[in-house]
Amino acid sequence: MRVVRTVAALREAIAEAGDGGVGLVPTMGALHEGHLSLVRAARQDHELVIVSVFVNPTQFNDAADLDAYPRDEARDVELAASAGADLVFAPNVAEMYPQGFATTVRVTGSITHRLEGAMRGSAHFDGVATIVAKLLIAVSPDSAYFGAKDAQQVVVVRRMVADLGIPTRIVSCPTSREEGGLARSSRNARLSPSARTRALAIPRALREIEGALSHGEMDAGVLKERGLAVLRADELEVEYLEIVDPDGLEALASVTRPALCVVAVRVENVRLIDNVLLTPAHALAAER
Amino acid sequence: MRVVRTVAALREAIAEAGDGGVGLVPTMGALHEGHLSLVRAARQDHELVIVSVFVNPTQFNDAADLDAYPRDEARDVELAASAGADLVFAPNVAEMYPQGFATTVRVTGSITHRLEGAMRGSAHFDGVATIVAKLLIAVSPDSAYFGAKDAQQVVVVRRMVADLGIPTRIVSCPTSREEGGLARSSRNARLSPSARTRALAIPRALREIEGALSHGEMDAGVLKERGLAVLRADELEVEYLEIVDPDGLEALASVTRPALCVVAVRVENVRLIDNVLLTPAHALAAER
Repeated sequence: MRVVRTVAALREAIAEAGDGGVGLVPTMGALHEGHLSLVRAARQDHELVIVSVFVNPTQFNDAADLDAYPRDEARDVELAASAGADLVFAPNVAEMYPQGFATTVRVTGSITHRLEGAMRGSAHFDGVATIVAKLLIAVSPDSAYFGAKDAQQVVVVRRMVADLGIPTRIVSCPTSREEGGLARSSRNARLSPSARTRALAIPRALREIEGALSHGEMDAGVLKERGLAVLRADELEVEYLEIVDPDGLEALASVTRPALCVVAVRVENVRLIDNVLLTPAHALAAER
Repeated sequence: MRVVRTVAALREAIAEAGDGGVGLVPTMGALHEGHLSLVRAARQDHELVIVSVFVNPTQFNDAADLDAYPRDEARDVELAASAGADLVFAPNVAEMYPQGFATTVRVTGSITHRLEGAMRGSAHFDGVATIVAKLLIAVSPDSAYFGAKDAQQVVVVRRMVADLGIPTRIVSCPTSREEGGLARSSRNARLSPSARTRALAIPRALREIEGALSHGEMDAGVLKERGLAVLRADELEVEYLEIVDPDGLEALASVTRPALCVVAVRVENVRLIDNVLLTPAHALAAER
């Protein structure tokens, strides 16, 4: 497994690899099964699989969160190799943001201002869009793989890639879940045993909403209340729980077509997000 | 001469042309000798020369200026061909900014906020950086050619290209001048005969400053006064006349190293800009 640290070395390694296609899995390290499922998807699709490992400072709104973000490159490299990656790109901050850096790629509108954008500040998605643009320009991958857990990030990245005309296919892979249903996240490592147990209310709340929908409840307000009741029973601090349009992320009044249910909570000061795609019963019936 | 109107057709044409090197000359049409000198430079350097013709609405701060911007595609195509271009990319607005477009490439700091940025508003360079990023991503040229007349634009584009890691060399070509020294600009076509005569005070003012510098005057305040006196004698409305650092565009107090003298005036409501690189006598002596 080769590790390169500069864009120049990265481009050289890609040129050496020849013209098979390239799949990129952008990560902030702290790899877990969720990331590895992305690497395996890339492995199936492409000849050269690159995993980038870069804890991007500009997308953190909270310096303490950035400091606490887990870093273990040797472990990440080993895990990436085990899942079939060919190359790890692990630049330092100065390589990605050299002296005098002054450019931001910004996606505007409800897809960045609502939900995570509202909670974490507009700089968060500026940071995401800018670093993803830089990575896609550096690698020129045929496909790039993102976890569906970060649903809003996928929407923002798709918009940015379409708008700038970057010729990369953006692939969203299903959220990987621990036993009990908790969405895998690098932040889960910071949960105490009791916090982890309480966090299971998040997937339970999403299942509660899915269940109510499957029994014919389509009113978004009612569905949200059902989910919130589950979260409140475990005294989770809810930042938002919303039912939104999957493309524009505007709040929906009722689930008459596919919708995204997104949730963000804090448990003992660890911030966790999750989501599920809601499909109303009549839409499911129409599919059959 | 082939004209293509979509990014897809453009990429196909580039792929067909093979691996020879690509030079791009981004223009807003209304081609004149200045543009053609860029095309000839690209022709010398590369096997495939592409001229883009797109009047980019997002970089105009003034709707009237956008409306009045001269458009004559047939003439542009003919001129581009005469200078050696192989391909014209002439997309419409919907091709570059489709429904739902929401992404901006923004360069921040003094290089965008001062001078043109201060006069035309911050949206101007947002528009420039975004459309140039899109064109460079669409074409993937080895080199892109810009006129030194738009000095600040060149600084902003270089910064954006370095920051995003776009692998294109940015080439700045000398300002092309009419007889009498007026910098060539598509806007010159809107000058009345008397305005054109008065506009000759712009290159005269720059020469006055160069002359004073060559006689040992290095104080920026004094040099500016010498230039302003020339402009005032022809009653030109001066938006700015400044002596700045060529990279960061901060104002300089004295010309002890190479500096850029930039000027913007209005003549009968036509806005004209120009600039000259100032090299102090001791720096010239050191070169010998």
